Amino acid sequence: MRLGLIGCGLIGVSAAWAMKKAGSVDSVLAYNRHAQSAKRMVELGIADASTEDMCALASTCDAVMVAVPVRVMPSVFQTIAPALDPKTIVTDVGSVRGFVVEAARKAFGPAFPRYAALHPIAGGEKSGIDAARVDLFEGANVISTPTPETDPKVLARWESLWVSTGARIRRMSVEEHDAVFGCVSHLPHVLSYALVDMVAERENAKTHFNLVGGGFRDFTRIAASSPEMWRDICLTNAEAILRELDDYTSKVSQLRDAIERHDAKALEAIFTRAAHARRSEVR
Amino acid sequence: MRLGLIGCGLIGVSAAWAMKKAGSVDSVLAYNRHAQSAKRMVELGIADASTEDMCALASTCDAVMVAVPVRVMPSVFQTIAPALDPKTIVTDVGSVRGFVVEAARKAFGPAFPRYAALHPIAGGEKSGIDAARVDLFEGANVISTPTPETDPKVLARWESLWVSTGARIRRMSVEEHDAVFGCVSHLPHVLSYALVDMVAERENAKTHFNLVGGGFRDFTRIAASSPEMWRDICLTNAEAILRELDDYTSKVSQLRDAIERHDAKALEAIFTRAAHARRSEVR
Repeated sequence: MRLGLIGCGLIGVSAAWAMKKAGSVDSVLAYNRHAQSAKRMVELGIADASTEDMCALASTCDAVMVAVPVRVMPSVFQTIAPALDPKTIVTDVGSVRGFVVEAARKAFGPAFPRYAALHPIAGGEKSGIDAARVDLFEGANVISTPTPETDPKVLARWESLWVSTGARIRRMSVEEHDAVFGCVSHLPHVLSYALVDMVAERENAKTHFNLVGGGFRDFTRIAASSPEMWRDICLTNAEAILRELDDYTSKVSQLRDAIERHDAKALEAIFTRAAHARRSEVR
Repeated sequence: MRLGLIGCGLIGVSAAWAMKKAGSVDSVLAYNRHAQSAKRMVELGIADASTEDMCALASTCDAVMVAVPVRVMPSVFQTIAPALDPKTIVTDVGSVRGFVVEAARKAFGPAFPRYAALHPIAGGEKSGIDAARVDLFEGANVISTPTPETDPKVLARWESLWVSTGARIRRMSVEEHDAVFGCVSHLPHVLSYALVDMVAERENAKTHFNLVGGGFRDFTRIAASSPEMWRDICLTNAEAILRELDDYTSKVSQLRDAIERHDAKALEAIFTRAAHARRSEVR
């Protein structure tokens, strides 16, 4: 099987690398907006060839993985749609499902059943080809969000390609995905950026940053993530993120009130429940 | 020099251990409210003896380190004050300075100059004697907050004991300490507890917790910290923490507005500034 990769960032390169190492794809053809990264994939021996023509890639590969920022997905889908070979299967790796799946439905039309949406829960604050790792998906969750139209054979092929990277597949609906990850991933990113930006704006920001301990460091690790990627996620999963921000603000206000009225019992109750959940529920 | 340790938790035990290993203290006498932990320090070879009498400890040691939760400090100071040998020096390791220094001033009276306040920036979500490490303070900052009354020789002795653990000393005023750490330490703890508690309250909390990635995991690591310790910090540094919470809430609301009006430029500007600061200013 020949895999065509559109977008040579951390996730796409790591996925192609792991699939090739596992033998689940025979060769990789790489495309990137800036051709340099695609060429670098060839130099690193992860891709077998690179191309500057997305349509040539779409017409000559058995499977196409789109791994570009979420808001770029619609235009990539529209560009490759007319060029897809009738047997080619397509996927993407975006962090938002509703927006991307709708764009795929619109762009691919009758070919939409040959597209499957799978989102690997991996990555981090480092991005780009040089952060890629062949073992990035070992033990990671990959969220598979089939639609009623998705061809079960296409779905099975993409899921099995991801399983070959060491990942576990979890299926859920597009709506559930966007709600859950709006909460456990998108929300903490926004909150982490907010804390760093608040400190950065201060006159004595340097003093603050020089004195941070491990708590601040871990809390804000994700604030070093790609600004473009997170801007796009905020814009394309806005409804869920706004809902989560409101829920969070109300919890913070509950804590604020307890601090203001020196309510030791209320503070201890919230901290104890949270500490218990963090210790026992999060691995 | 004989060190008396009151409170056998992570910080106190690690400090006594490191000072003894460095040879800057000759012997350690341990007291703990639950005698078991003090006895365990002896079993582990970190303390030479344990006592169930705080006053006996205060009258027989050259240096006394109080390492109990912040809100317990005042009563410990009052208990040991009459028993202190006239040459004994005293310190504490609390995360809040204003509240503790005032309690020391009140309890020690004319002996207050023999007390110095130093706060090591170390620890984490694990607490208790079994989390103690002899190298916990290697490269860590210890914040020294002398008052006009503090005897410079007493200050120098405590600072040099901390230097022997591998720590760096940074001096600042009590007020600056509580403002800076209200921002870079106390605020993120409250925010991290808030996120976990918000998720824990949901009907489908387990689904959420099972799907978290590294971002959520790091953001909430400190939500596993000791609830009692953080309750006390919130109550004793309330003014600074409330100010920081208000500043933070206003930054989050700025981001919320940008998401609501789909303002890509505003989002990217904030995320870019934060990512730059996190990458370049925080080590």
